Amino acid sequence: MVTVSMDVKTQDRSGDSGAGSRMAAEVAEQPLAVQRTLDALLPLRGAVSELAQGRRRVLFAARGSSDNAAVYGRYLLETRAGVLGSLLSPSVATHYRASLDLSDALVVCVSQSGATSEIVDTQSWAGANGAATLAITNVEGSPLAEYADLALVTRAGPELAVPATKTYLTQLVAMAVLGTALAPDPTVLDAELARVPGEVERLVREPHGVDAAVGALRDAAYAVVSGRGLMMGTALETALKLEETCLRPVRGYSYADLRHGPISVVTSGMTAVLVAAPDGPLLAPMAELADDLAARGATVVGIGGDPAFADACAVHVPGPELPEALAPLGAIVPAQLIVEGLARELGLDPDNPRGLAKVTATDPPQPKENP
Amino acid sequence: MVTVSMDVKTQDRSGDSGAGSRMAAEVAEQPLAVQRTLDALLPLRGAVSELAQGRRRVLFAARGSSDNAAVYGRYLLETRAGVLGSLLSPSVATHYRASLDLSDALVVCVSQSGATSEIVDTQSWAGANGAATLAITNVEGSPLAEYADLALVTRAGPELAVPATKTYLTQLVAMAVLGTALAPDPTVLDAELARVPGEVERLVREPHGVDAAVGALRDAAYAVVSGRGLMMGTALETALKLEETCLRPVRGYSYADLRHGPISVVTSGMTAVLVAAPDGPLLAPMAELADDLAARGATVVGIGGDPAFADACAVHVPGPELPEALAPLGAIVPAQLIVEGLARELGLDPDNPRGLAKVTATDPPQPKENP
Repeated sequence: MVTVSMDVKTQDRSGDSGAGSRMAAEVAEQPLAVQRTLDALLPLRGAVSELAQGRRRVLFAARGSSDNAAVYGRYLLETRAGVLGSLLSPSVATHYRASLDLSDALVVCVSQSGATSEIVDTQSWAGANGAATLAITNVEGSPLAEYADLALVTRAGPELAVPATKTYLTQLVAMAVLGTALAPDPTVLDAELARVPGEVERLVREPHGVDAAVGALRDAAYAVVSGRGLMMGTALETALKLEETCLRPVRGYSYADLRHGPISVVTSGMTAVLVAAPDGPLLAPMAELADDLAARGATVVGIGGDPAFADACAVHVPGPELPEALAPLGAIVPAQLIVEGLARELGLDPDNPRGLAKVTATDPPQPKENP
Repeated sequence: MVTVSMDVKTQDRSGDSGAGSRMAAEVAEQPLAVQRTLDALLPLRGAVSELAQGRRRVLFAARGSSDNAAVYGRYLLETRAGVLGSLLSPSVATHYRASLDLSDALVVCVSQSGATSEIVDTQSWAGANGAATLAITNVEGSPLAEYADLALVTRAGPELAVPATKTYLTQLVAMAVLGTALAPDPTVLDAELARVPGEVERLVREPHGVDAAVGALRDAAYAVVSGRGLMMGTALETALKLEETCLRPVRGYSYADLRHGPISVVTSGMTAVLVAAPDGPLLAPMAELADDLAARGATVVGIGGDPAFADACAVHVPGPELPEALAPLGAIVPAQLIVEGLARELGLDPDNPRGLAKVTATDPPQPKENP
């Protein structure tokens, strides 16, 4: 548990959040958490690649924030590694106890605590059905890490605020390690990966537009969040955090699903948060979506994108200067700052929203609510 | 287009809806639409099985209601046929143009019109990447049907109301045909499949509890819908229809995802709609969820389940007497009746909610908003 004590010290030093919440402190710890996780996991790419030998599919099993990290992992695998990635439904394992031939699959189970029984059981089921198993968890020695064929243990350190921040971001780092390990050239994104800690730090220290975004959400009767492709997981995670932490029903839609029908509920009084990467084939469609939502009367808050996207948004919060494949590792930071600020603005405690409990990450035998 | 003219006649005869909306008339046509579709598709099970020879995976591509039908298809395949089913992200095909080895996959593209360009393009991409392709569409001769290796053409007839009802239910029939075609014994559910049209008819004619459910939703500040496993698609479809047709933000959650965090936003003033099958491993957990939501102050509307589930709900609407594997083919009917009734109660036109357009299903070159 060296990383735990390291992290507690780090936390004590990060006093620049101003907000005083544990969540804000943990957001500010992320540059170091990302760096530690990169240092620990990049050397494991060879082992990941070896484990995946002869496996044609990657299947993810996760819940909540971990599931949103898996959504990123899936798109990264499909678009950068040419490997099909899919999300498993844990109930197929835990309740239906289905017999499936998984001998051609690598099953990746994701749980911050490594102790969520549903995910631990799904991993055990996957192994019994022939899968190779890879665990992504923040807790060394947890059941998930112990029983997997290989574990990518993130180095976020203990997370004390209920909303997952640094544990989520370090899961994204693990996904980037997995995605590049299975790519034709595993080093293809290494130069950009090395810039991630610096970009995360810059975004924590220069929260441009965050206060305006908080204001737009504070006054909203209802909010939706949308993104697409590699940024879809970021949209889902932003929606989940707004909902859990600020106690407001918030829906995360893919661009296409929103356009497909539910856009009919968009009216004035609604705030739409759109997350976009600075490049990629979905940037222009996201700018068009911003225009359309504004035309329907929504207040559009944009995170990331390029200048054209920013122009299409009523409120713009800059994102990372990272290519689309890694943009989620930076874009979540302004979203976290918005969530934390909005919770305080609403008079809520960002660290302990009503109705949620969290067992500390250092207590692996106990499942916690935010795996 | 024989089925189209047949259906128009059928529609003219079904005058027992009382409500006068096109949507209500189309809901009432479903017993015949289901019967026609069963008659047309059950003989194709051999061809489906042959197409799937040597394919280890089924991948679905769809949007909106069709996507919700695919969610059912996926659980049916995994729990009854031992075949892994997953949902594709169309953007991976249409925007990223990823190169994936799909030579071990059967790709099932689902589109009511068979003309939604995103889904047609995804099918074409799948074929080029080595997949066998199966189309599920309501329009014979549509691009999706024409270019697929095999097409399961549903026999709903033209659907004129914007909300998909009979086209969705007949897609579920096609999923049941697919799921049983790949099962060790394709005839295993035949006796129960034969009872589906009668159960659908009974549920249309005996709408017990529907008015009370409409009342509970009319007075709700916010609504969520939840289900799990084989009923998950029903929950998502119910949420989508409430949102599109009644212009209210409604969230569909899986049981587990709701428990995992967003349950914190459940308070008094909220109505929770829970859908359950009359048997299966998720029935008891759904009854427990009903108790928990009620304890948090929500008004719980239950559809289906058993007497214990009914007792746990403030308002109960009976579902079909069909085993879990086929329960979605009946349980959507009371949900449709609730949606139609709520729209009228709110002074909205169930057939033409604001902001949605629909090209008739007989115009295949035009994509419509409800593929």
